Amino acid sequence: MKQKELTSRLLHIVGEEGVVLNPADQEPYVNDWLGKAHGRTVAVVRPRNTTEVAAVMRLCHQTHTPVVPQGGNTGMSGGATPDMSGAQVVLSLNRMKRIHDVDPINNTLTADAGVILADIQQAARHVDRYFPLSLGAEGSCTIGGNLATNAGGTGVLRYGNTRDLTLGLEVVLPDGRVWNGLRALRKDNTGYDLKDLFIGSEGSLGIITGVVLKLFAAPAGRVTAWVGAQNLTNIVALLNRLQADCGPRLSAFEMMSAPSLALVTQQLPGHASPLDKTYPYYALIELADTNMSGVQDMLQAGLAVAIEDALIDDCVVAMSEAQSISMWKLREGISMAQVKAGKAVKHDIALPISSLARFAAEADQAVQDDFPGLPIINFGHIGDGNLHYNVLLPLDVAYEDYAKKTADLNKRIHDLVTQFNGSISAEHGVGTLRRDELRRYKSSVEMDLMIAIKRTLDPNQLMNPGKLL
Amino acid sequence: MKQKELTSRLLHIVGEEGVVLNPADQEPYVNDWLGKAHGRTVAVVRPRNTTEVAAVMRLCHQTHTPVVPQGGNTGMSGGATPDMSGAQVVLSLNRMKRIHDVDPINNTLTADAGVILADIQQAARHVDRYFPLSLGAEGSCTIGGNLATNAGGTGVLRYGNTRDLTLGLEVVLPDGRVWNGLRALRKDNTGYDLKDLFIGSEGSLGIITGVVLKLFAAPAGRVTAWVGAQNLTNIVALLNRLQADCGPRLSAFEMMSAPSLALVTQQLPGHASPLDKTYPYYALIELADTNMSGVQDMLQAGLAVAIEDALIDDCVVAMSEAQSISMWKLREGISMAQVKAGKAVKHDIALPISSLARFAAEADQAVQDDFPGLPIINFGHIGDGNLHYNVLLPLDVAYEDYAKKTADLNKRIHDLVTQFNGSISAEHGVGTLRRDELRRYKSSVEMDLMIAIKRTLDPNQLMNPGKLL
Repeated sequence: MKQKELTSRLLHIVGEEGVVLNPADQEPYVNDWLGKAHGRTVAVVRPRNTTEVAAVMRLCHQTHTPVVPQGGNTGMSGGATPDMSGAQVVLSLNRMKRIHDVDPINNTLTADAGVILADIQQAARHVDRYFPLSLGAEGSCTIGGNLATNAGGTGVLRYGNTRDLTLGLEVVLPDGRVWNGLRALRKDNTGYDLKDLFIGSEGSLGIITGVVLKLFAAPAGRVTAWVGAQNLTNIVALLNRLQADCGPRLSAFEMMSAPSLALVTQQLPGHASPLDKTYPYYALIELADTNMSGVQDMLQAGLAVAIEDALIDDCVVAMSEAQSISMWKLREGISMAQVKAGKAVKHDIALPISSLARFAAEADQAVQDDFPGLPIINFGHIGDGNLHYNVLLPLDVAYEDYAKKTADLNKRIHDLVTQFNGSISAEHGVGTLRRDELRRYKSSVEMDLMIAIKRTLDPNQLMNPGKLL
Repeated sequence: MKQKELTSRLLHIVGEEGVVLNPADQEPYVNDWLGKAHGRTVAVVRPRNTTEVAAVMRLCHQTHTPVVPQGGNTGMSGGATPDMSGAQVVLSLNRMKRIHDVDPINNTLTADAGVILADIQQAARHVDRYFPLSLGAEGSCTIGGNLATNAGGTGVLRYGNTRDLTLGLEVVLPDGRVWNGLRALRKDNTGYDLKDLFIGSEGSLGIITGVVLKLFAAPAGRVTAWVGAQNLTNIVALLNRLQADCGPRLSAFEMMSAPSLALVTQQLPGHASPLDKTYPYYALIELADTNMSGVQDMLQAGLAVAIEDALIDDCVVAMSEAQSISMWKLREGISMAQVKAGKAVKHDIALPISSLARFAAEADQAVQDDFPGLPIINFGHIGDGNLHYNVLLPLDVAYEDYAKKTADLNKRIHDLVTQFNGSISAEHGVGTLRRDELRRYKSSVEMDLMIAIKRTLDPNQLMNPGKLL
């Protein structure tokens, strides 16, 4: 089909406001926010509802037009950017923004896929409930994108990934049929778990158009602490103790190495360490509960014992919400500090928590052997076994050297991750960024199973081609 | 292939002890424990490890022999019983009983699929951790069976279903290939969620041979209470309040109607109501925490306010573990009391919690209109929206009348469940029991997706034929 006929039929389905044809207006849809992925498109299509998504998908199915689904376009792995062919349609969900139902008795919220994550958090707060998914991009990412990538973030330790927060889905299949799986049930054992097949499939099996999410009791407050320790083994031991003593009150346990903290305090004005001395590793700890009586005492007592036992060297418990916020700013500032300091070669990896310290020791040694002098920025959600294990290159590194070092470092680190039975993409997904590496690290049986499922659900290979698989 | 050649090759793979050929010895494998499902088999095969399972599956694949996987054979829906053809092999996992690893730092346990659930609970306790899956059959069901049916039970409110407790799986595919997905990771976004496709698939896609399970902090104790209320609306309102006030401490919220309690106290000696008067509905409530300081006060205060607000009419908080156990015996005694009283037509259903009261009112009316005089035994895990909504027939009901009433009642109740967007099998699965009903209540799109997945993973349709789909 000619491009002109395709766009005219798209216009017929979604109207003038629903199709972006002007190349300047297409810019925000065909480049990713990191500035790394760039593409072209026949048209950006922005349906208003599931019926329109279904009609667009039927058209693309009939005309063999490849489709790139897109939410808030805040991904880290290039999964929502079209290729350079100009033959792909970008299907943006950003006009599907309705929250259909908030049910505080069933503790569920039903929404369109295009709703901004922060708006969902807000709607939950409005009925005195809590939606725990939280990440840096929450002001612009959509819940549909969170679902497509099974987003993680800072709430995973207590509440799980996006997958764990989801009860039901609505999905438009590649041929335009609609699967209505919008169930608001805690139990349903009537067949295969289709929902979890679409969650984390990065738009390669269908378009998620709606969701039923779990809501939780709103915490009455939080207590935040900052600790310094000599090594990662001790940080993990503290995590383990607090998990046993505090149970689900432990709502965050974030780690940062000394160079990570130094980078933040050096690069970002107004950011200072809460402790007088420096230590090789730090942890940011948070307890939250529906009833905060005794919770601060519990954390202080646990940390006092940890100091007595020489697990940690020093600690400070925030005495105000302002102090809590300052501590979180140190953790959240790392990404920006990295950007200011140079080019970071990044690894978003997960390991069994019991292997974290041994992995980091071997990885640090390997980086120093093979790439002497490069600073290692090791931080992350270690309560989930998730490290952002990054290596800094200077700001003025040449492009060719950057590309080669990135590939070499990725291989070095990901080989080691695989030795320790870890994951080479803990929360950022595969997209185009890790697609080739996937083949290297997955077993052939697992690749065969994934490809078989892809062929079954998307036989014409029109859904987000070149991503994930 | 002749039956004799098949058994000789099976004997070659698993040895004399691994094949049961004597019909008398086969009895426990070809009948279900409810006495409802009966079948015949070529041979019961009991491999010792994954390599043997793989060899058996390769042989069955080559010889087009259908396979019925079986764990502890404690299912409620006939999903583990061979048909009457005598052509199916029963593949029992009951010799695969090794717990390979218990990791209290990573909070994980790795085990063979044939390990008894109670042994997994015990292994967790041994390292001061908690594995929360708990159900009546825990002394004889296997974790593999729990996975194949996504078992629920009494711990779902706080910890989720079996699916939510699982990090990794090992599966032998229908052609004998082994998928090693035994990952002990909290985060892993590297492709499709294969694990959740096998969980709950009732042995129709492959044989689950191994699992990595999540462990949790061991609770330091529990507080149990029993309340009486005028209606289900109030019971649900109390549930909702306690969820908001107590957060994850609320570890159980079970409901039983007045006829359910009366049945237990009448049929089972030594079972008495904890309250002086009778009320239309009762709830059994439990709080548990890693630190029990203030927890009993919290429950007592919450119930006092509920009495003041006339949500509930009376309550008693257990003052000893013995009192807790007595309360739980009333809840657990319902199944046995039903057996003694007559034939129960059972429904294992789930509804949005906000619809429970309206559903029960309409269902009670419908049963009384269409089947006057039959007692309704309504009880269940209402914290999960899961009702066991049963109707008693007299002990001496004729078989033909029983069969017809069962079919009519099932249709009446399940039609209503579907109107309320509920599930016709909350935790017991589909098996042969609900297979025909599945087609009635699922959309054609959902049936098509499930059948497409089945055809992809089991193209020769050899895995547990006649079950689920």
